[in-house]
Amino acid sequence: MKASIISVGTEILFGQITNTNSVFLSRQLNLLGFDVLYHHTVGDNESRLSEIIKASLKDCDIIITTGGLGPTEDDMTKETICSVFEDVLVEHKPSRKALENIAKERNYGKLTQNNYKQTLMPSRATVFHNDRGTAPGFALELKGKYAIALPGPPGEMTEMFDKKVKNFLKQFQESVICYRTLRFFGKGESSIETELIDLIDNQTDPTIATYAKEGECSVRVASKRDSEEEACEAIDDVVSEIKNRLGEYIFSYDDEEFAEVVGKKLIEKNLSISCCESCTGGMFAETLTSVPGISKVFDRGITTYTEKAKIDELHVNPRTIEEKTVYSSEVAMEMVQGLYKKTGSDICISITGVAGPEGGKEDFRPGSAYVGFKYNKKSFVTRINGRNMNRDRNRKYMVLWMLNIINKNI
Amino acid sequence: MKASIISVGTEILFGQITNTNSVFLSRQLNLLGFDVLYHHTVGDNESRLSEIIKASLKDCDIIITTGGLGPTEDDMTKETICSVFEDVLVEHKPSRKALENIAKERNYGKLTQNNYKQTLMPSRATVFHNDRGTAPGFALELKGKYAIALPGPPGEMTEMFDKKVKNFLKQFQESVICYRTLRFFGKGESSIETELIDLIDNQTDPTIATYAKEGECSVRVASKRDSEEEACEAIDDVVSEIKNRLGEYIFSYDDEEFAEVVGKKLIEKNLSISCCESCTGGMFAETLTSVPGISKVFDRGITTYTEKAKIDELHVNPRTIEEKTVYSSEVAMEMVQGLYKKTGSDICISITGVAGPEGGKEDFRPGSAYVGFKYNKKSFVTRINGRNMNRDRNRKYMVLWMLNIINKNI
Repeated sequence: MKASIISVGTEILFGQITNTNSVFLSRQLNLLGFDVLYHHTVGDNESRLSEIIKASLKDCDIIITTGGLGPTEDDMTKETICSVFEDVLVEHKPSRKALENIAKERNYGKLTQNNYKQTLMPSRATVFHNDRGTAPGFALELKGKYAIALPGPPGEMTEMFDKKVKNFLKQFQESVICYRTLRFFGKGESSIETELIDLIDNQTDPTIATYAKEGECSVRVASKRDSEEEACEAIDDVVSEIKNRLGEYIFSYDDEEFAEVVGKKLIEKNLSISCCESCTGGMFAETLTSVPGISKVFDRGITTYTEKAKIDELHVNPRTIEEKTVYSSEVAMEMVQGLYKKTGSDICISITGVAGPEGGKEDFRPGSAYVGFKYNKKSFVTRINGRNMNRDRNRKYMVLWMLNIINKNI
Repeated sequence: MKASIISVGTEILFGQITNTNSVFLSRQLNLLGFDVLYHHTVGDNESRLSEIIKASLKDCDIIITTGGLGPTEDDMTKETICSVFEDVLVEHKPSRKALENIAKERNYGKLTQNNYKQTLMPSRATVFHNDRGTAPGFALELKGKYAIALPGPPGEMTEMFDKKVKNFLKQFQESVICYRTLRFFGKGESSIETELIDLIDNQTDPTIATYAKEGECSVRVASKRDSEEEACEAIDDVVSEIKNRLGEYIFSYDDEEFAEVVGKKLIEKNLSISCCESCTGGMFAETLTSVPGISKVFDRGITTYTEKAKIDELHVNPRTIEEKTVYSSEVAMEMVQGLYKKTGSDICISITGVAGPEGGKEDFRPGSAYVGFKYNKKSFVTRINGRNMNRDRNRKYMVLWMLNIINKNI
């Protein structure tokens, strides 16, 4: 099947947002064995969208649109698809009911005619319920060609795709593509590639692709075979080989977030944890508590931003701060000791450093920090050498580093 | 001038890279007063690229391509443009010389015929030298329509655009586009549109567009005029009218993040702040401390996840928890009082609730929480009624709510 991805939205043409929907859909469609021939972006303009759809259908079997399904007047993706696919919009009762339920739950007040516009669907459509928003998506067929319309907000679109559209598309799949994504911390993309270059160069199937993410990397191993078993087996062989070479840097073999891996391990081992943070400002606590069920083991997090807070809350010795500075191995250790004294948590972890973009010094650039760790009789401090990225990236990298320390030591 | 941006590259269609070139070019072209009607992406395929160029030229005056100028066989952007614009490739001597210089500098060794392919240019082209790479770009005209071909690597493309192409395009500049983005909390997109529907319906210039983001909304007001002053004045008039109608929901008139607005206000007023969080797990502290310079006013954040932590850290009365439950207005108030007692911060804020996706009860669904606030003699608790979204969205919405309380009360 040949596919065209069409994004609808003037904000993309203004350069106000980056088109991440096309990236997501391209990856997903390729994994399902589709050939993506085009990405198109067009504003909220019926005649241009109509032309793009018609042009795409000349050499594609399926078009997938994102955006333009909302309640406002300039949303006209449905109307345009209907006209090209020779159908009409009619009220879709389950969607109407779903909208009214959401409105009630979220206290929207009285629904306007605009709101109800979202519950009109092409009469022949297969409707995809939107679990995260109010605009449903749909699939529509004419003479063996398909249109799939998805909402524009990435969260809604990806969830709808994962939960509903993927299954719908499987009917067109001629072979099976399986893949596994390994996630790495502590080794850069080009360095991983160098270690795997012979596998990458000789690849036909499975294929191996590396991706860089903020502070971490992933490697996707994919195989396209006649059956799932065959594909999985082929993948497992390659994964074993990668594990042999680079296992110490891999924190997940199933594309899990680092916090999820660590959180689950803590819950499984029933180890209580507390943290105290300076430069990360609560980001470690926030990241770890993003894991559902973590309340079983997470006791507390203390963000001691000022020196006074470090002294009050964690009994850091003012003299240590004065003599060693607040960004020091000694302060990190006193923080973790103070935290343990007050919480008694199985695991205590502390961080003090420079989030950036300003601050730091010659040998302690923004992004640098000391991490204190205590678990049973083991306690130590490690140093993160700052990469001098922006504030957000520096802090995210620090949090990954903290997760890595826990992961390696429990 | 109407423009179409065409990206050439199979890696984009595989979803391996995000198309940031289109974002950059869109912004730049809009600022120069061009209307960007399309983004297209096509693989390294001559006939498809040719069709896309021809289709774009039907309603655009200019097409801008990125990618496909390199030395390898599948690079065929130049050849395709030449054929549509009725020109032929000839050797461009200055480019040949520049390539040989780079090769010498970088120790490339003997240049191959492929390398020299990069120095062929359309005979009528205006050539743009590439300061950061080996493939030059160019502009080519036919019957009043233009093609501009730029290299694909973002660093090369943006530098070429800034240093050369912008000047070239200025000859076509007829007007200036300016815009402002207002950001809203506490009012949904369709409800904002309803209040502004007369302005939106009658819009010619400035134009008004609404967008939904997680938990908040924005409105973009844009104007295209002969001069920047004129455009700004026109925008200001519309913004004033929107402010009259909906000012109470607007937290930024310049597209700032809510945390940035609140953080700057705290710094400006020199108000110290501390927070204690349960369900948001440190996300409020993390969000507020994402603002550079916040260390001047942010004292500490305490994430008291367990009941014991609430009792230890904030001296919440165990009996209050037992009688009223931990998700209660009373506990939120005791948390904020305990926080004030230990920190003395000018502003203290607390939150206790259910992050979800599990937990809560009939009249206190996931996403619900109580927020305690204290500033000078003012202290109160407000209730957030959960929207029962996923854990991450529930928590983000809670944090926006907390920022809103601070913003309204200082």
